[in-house]
Amino acid sequence: MSEDPQQNDLDALQDHLFEVETLLAWLKPLDDAGEAPPDAASAENHDALLQRLRQRLDRMHPADVAYVLEALPLEERLLVWDLVKAERDGEILLEVSDAVRETLIESMARHELVAAVETLDTDELADLVPDLPQEVVEDVFQALPTEEREQLRTAISCPEDSVGALMDFDMATVRGDVTLEVVLRYLRRFDALPEHTDKIFVVDRDDCLLGVLPLEDLLINDPDTNVAAVMKTDVVRFHPEDKAEDAALAFERYDLGSAPVVSSVDNKVIGRLTLVAVVDFIREESEAEQLAHAGLREEEDIFASVWDSVKNRWAWLAVNLVTAFVASRVIGLFEGAIEKLVALAALMPIVAGIGGNSGNQTITMIVRAIAMGQVNPDATRRLLRKELGVALINGIIWGGLLGFLATWLYGSGSLGLVMTAAMTLNLLLAAFAGVGIPMLRQRLGLDPAIGGSVLITALTDSGGFFIFLGLASLFLL
Amino acid sequence: MSEDPQQNDLDALQDHLFEVETLLAWLKPLDDAGEAPPDAASAENHDALLQRLRQRLDRMHPADVAYVLEALPLEERLLVWDLVKAERDGEILLEVSDAVRETLIESMARHELVAAVETLDTDELADLVPDLPQEVVEDVFQALPTEEREQLRTAISCPEDSVGALMDFDMATVRGDVTLEVVLRYLRRFDALPEHTDKIFVVDRDDCLLGVLPLEDLLINDPDTNVAAVMKTDVVRFHPEDKAEDAALAFERYDLGSAPVVSSVDNKVIGRLTLVAVVDFIREESEAEQLAHAGLREEEDIFASVWDSVKNRWAWLAVNLVTAFVASRVIGLFEGAIEKLVALAALMPIVAGIGGNSGNQTITMIVRAIAMGQVNPDATRRLLRKELGVALINGIIWGGLLGFLATWLYGSGSLGLVMTAAMTLNLLLAAFAGVGIPMLRQRLGLDPAIGGSVLITALTDSGGFFIFLGLASLFLL
Repeated sequence: MSEDPQQNDLDALQDHLFEVETLLAWLKPLDDAGEAPPDAASAENHDALLQRLRQRLDRMHPADVAYVLEALPLEERLLVWDLVKAERDGEILLEVSDAVRETLIESMARHELVAAVETLDTDELADLVPDLPQEVVEDVFQALPTEEREQLRTAISCPEDSVGALMDFDMATVRGDVTLEVVLRYLRRFDALPEHTDKIFVVDRDDCLLGVLPLEDLLINDPDTNVAAVMKTDVVRFHPEDKAEDAALAFERYDLGSAPVVSSVDNKVIGRLTLVAVVDFIREESEAEQLAHAGLREEEDIFASVWDSVKNRWAWLAVNLVTAFVASRVIGLFEGAIEKLVALAALMPIVAGIGGNSGNQTITMIVRAIAMGQVNPDATRRLLRKELGVALINGIIWGGLLGFLATWLYGSGSLGLVMTAAMTLNLLLAAFAGVGIPMLRQRLGLDPAIGGSVLITALTDSGGFFIFLGLASLFLL
Repeated sequence: MSEDPQQNDLDALQDHLFEVETLLAWLKPLDDAGEAPPDAASAENHDALLQRLRQRLDRMHPADVAYVLEALPLEERLLVWDLVKAERDGEILLEVSDAVRETLIESMARHELVAAVETLDTDELADLVPDLPQEVVEDVFQALPTEEREQLRTAISCPEDSVGALMDFDMATVRGDVTLEVVLRYLRRFDALPEHTDKIFVVDRDDCLLGVLPLEDLLINDPDTNVAAVMKTDVVRFHPEDKAEDAALAFERYDLGSAPVVSSVDNKVIGRLTLVAVVDFIREESEAEQLAHAGLREEEDIFASVWDSVKNRWAWLAVNLVTAFVASRVIGLFEGAIEKLVALAALMPIVAGIGGNSGNQTITMIVRAIAMGQVNPDATRRLLRKELGVALINGIIWGGLLGFLATWLYGSGSLGLVMTAAMTLNLLLAAFAGVGIPMLRQRLGLDPAIGGSVLITALTDSGGFFIFLGLASLFLL
C-alpha cells in the first residue's frame, strides 16, 4: 500500500511503460553510436539516462515493474531487468507471467538466482520452484533453516490446485486462556503482522486449532475479557489436500478474509489461506480456462518467437484437423448424392454449423450447473427433457425458416422438408450430447469442463452431414 | 463465520440439499393424502416435518439456503421459501442467482418485499433495486432516513460496472490528530466494525481523505502515538465513476483488502470498496464472459421453462443462422464447379473449419494482450507479423499434410496443391482478422472481447469456401 494515488489504473501503468520506453529509446542511439569510439559527452549522457531509468524503476511497485517487463521486447526487457535492484528480483519474478519469467530466469547466473529467491517467504519460494533450474533449488534448499525447509517440502509436495499450494506459513497464533490485553501487548512486539491478517488463530499447547479471534473482536471487546470468551469456535477451516476450487467457493460463499489450514491427521494449524491468494487462484483459473477454450496450451509472451507460438497451438489444430477430416469422409460417403443434387453441398454446412452452436450453448449451461453442484440424477432427467424441448422448438422454428428458404432458392418443397427435418434431428443430437458429454465425463471422474466443445462440434459436424445427406439420399434421389 | 467446520465444501452443500429434499419428499405424500380428510396422526406428522425443515433452514447460512433454493424445482422452492424466517428474506435474496431471485420476488406480496429489503444495507439494497417492482422501490425509498436515501440514489445512479455500484457506505473513520489509544477506545464503543474492515480511514474535519490507518499499524504501534504519525498517506483510492474492472486489476496488482472511494470533486470520502465485493465482481464477470462466449444472454435457472431457455438463446442462433446462410450462398456461387468435381464438397469444410479454429486462437491471444494493456501501435505491427508467421507455418505444415491426403484420396496432385494453397491463404486471413477485429473494436471504443469469435468464424467460413472453391475453379476446371 505504498503506491501513489495515480497508480491504481491502467492509464497509470501505461504511463510507467511509456516513460521506460522513452528512456530506452533515448538510450538506443547512444548504444548504436557506441560501436564507434564514444565521445565523452554521449557516454556521460548514456550513464545519466541509465541512472534515471534505474531510479524510476526503484520507485515502482514490483507489480508495475513486472508489467513493464512483460510489455517490452526481449532485448529491452533484459536491459531493464539488469537495472532492477538485485534484492527486488525475487518479488518481481513472482509477479511476471510464466512465459516472461522463463526469459528472465534464463538470463540469470546461478548465484544471482539463489540470492534473488532467498529473500522470499517459503510459500512464495514454492511458487517459483517449478521454474527454477534444479541446482538452484538444491542450493536454496540447503540454505534454509530446518523449519522452513519442512514448510517448503510440504508446499512443493501439494498438487498445484490444492489448498496446500496456496497457503502461507506466516500467521499469528495465541492461546485461549489469556486476556485480550495480553494479546494486544503481544502484537505490539511485532514489527509487522503477517500480511492480510484479519484474524488470529487460537491454539492449545499442541498447536491444535481451538478457534479464531477476528481482529474486530479483539478491538471492540473489553481488554480484560479472555480470548476464549470472545473467540469464534465454529470456524471454516481447510486441509492442505482440499481442492483450491472448493476453497475458493467457500471463501466467496461465506465472505472469508482468511482461514486456518489444519492437518487432517491431528488438527494442528499448519498454515493460513488468505482471500488475496484465493483471488490470484481464481484469476489464474479463469485465464487458463479462456486459453484452453481456444486450444492454447499456455499464455504466450507477446514477444515470443513464431516457433514458440506454433508449438503452443499445434495440438489443438491437430485435433481439429482429425475431426474435420472425419467429417469430410462422411461427406465423401454421399458424393453420389451431391453429384445428383449439388444444392446439398451448399446447404449442408448450415445444418452442421447451427447444430454446433446450439450444442455449445447446452454444454455451457450444463458445465455451469455441474460446477455449482446442482446436478443430481433427478435433475439430469429434467435437464435432458428441457434441452430436448428447446432443441425441438428451435428445430421447428429455425429449421422451418431454412426449409422455406431452401424451397424458395431451389424450387423444391421436398428439399425444404429434408432441410427442416435434418436441422431438427441435428439439434436434438446436439442437445443429447450437450447434456451427455459433461455428465459422462463427471461420472468418469474427469473434469466436465474440458474438451466438450471440440467433441460436440465434431459430433454435430459429422452427425449433421450424415443426417442431412442421408435423409436427402433416402427421400430426394 | 458462524459455520460448522464441515460446511466449507461442495459435499457439505449437497448434504444440506439432500436433507431438505428428504424432508420435502416425506411431506409430499402427506400433502397428497391431504386431499382426502387427513387423519389426526398424519396431520401432526406433517406439522412436525415442516417444523423440522424450518429449524434446519434457520441453522443454515444464507448462502447455503440460496444454494438449496437454486437446486429445487419451482414448487418445492416456493415451499422452502415460505418456511424461511421473514427477517432473513433480504439477505437470502441477495445470495440467489438473478433467475431464481425473479421467481422468489414474484411469489411475494408488496408488504413482504418491503419488509424483507428494509433490513439491508444501502449498498445491498441498491443491488436488488433493478429486480424489485417499482412500487416496492418507492415504498422503501420513502421509508429511508435522508442520508441513506442519498446513498441509495448515488449507488443506483452508478453504472453496473463502476466502482460506485460495488462500494459500500459503512466504514470507520477517525481524525488524524488523536492518539491510537483514543482510536482503540473509540472502536470499543462499536457493537461490530463494518464488515471486512482492514483499515480505518483518516479524514480531516471536512471528511476529506488524509490517509489510512491499517488495523495492523493500530495494533503494533505504541498507543500513545498519534494517528497522523503512523497512517499511510499514499493510498490507492478510487472514484465512484472508475471502472470496476480497473479497480479489480488494482486490487489484485497491489494485494489490497479494502480501499477508500472518494469524490472526484472534493476528495471527500464517500464509501469503501472491499476485496470481498471485488471478488464477487470478478466471479460475475468471468461467468458473464463464459455465457456470452456461447451466446447465452444470461444465466438460466436450471428449472426454467423451455420457453424461457429458447428466449435466452435465440439471438445467438439467429446471428449464426445469418452467417451460415451467407457461407451457403458463397458455396452456391460455385455449384457448377462442385458438380464437375464433387470432391470439392467433401474437402471445403476442412479449409473453413481449421481457419476458424486458428483465428479463434489468435483472437484469444490478442484480446488478452489488450486487456493487459500491452498493445500499442508498435506492438500491433509486431503481433501481426508474428501471427502471419504462425499462420504461414501452420498453412505449410497442416495444409501440406491435407494436400497430401487429398492427392492420395482423389488421385489428383493439382487438387492437393489447391488444398494446400487454400488452407494457407485462409489461415493468413484468419490471422489478419484475428489481430484486426479486436484492435479495430478497441479503436472504435468498443469492448474488444465481444463478438470477435462469431465474426471471425463467419469470415473464415465464407472466406475459406470462397478461396478454396475459387482456386479450384481457376486451376482445376
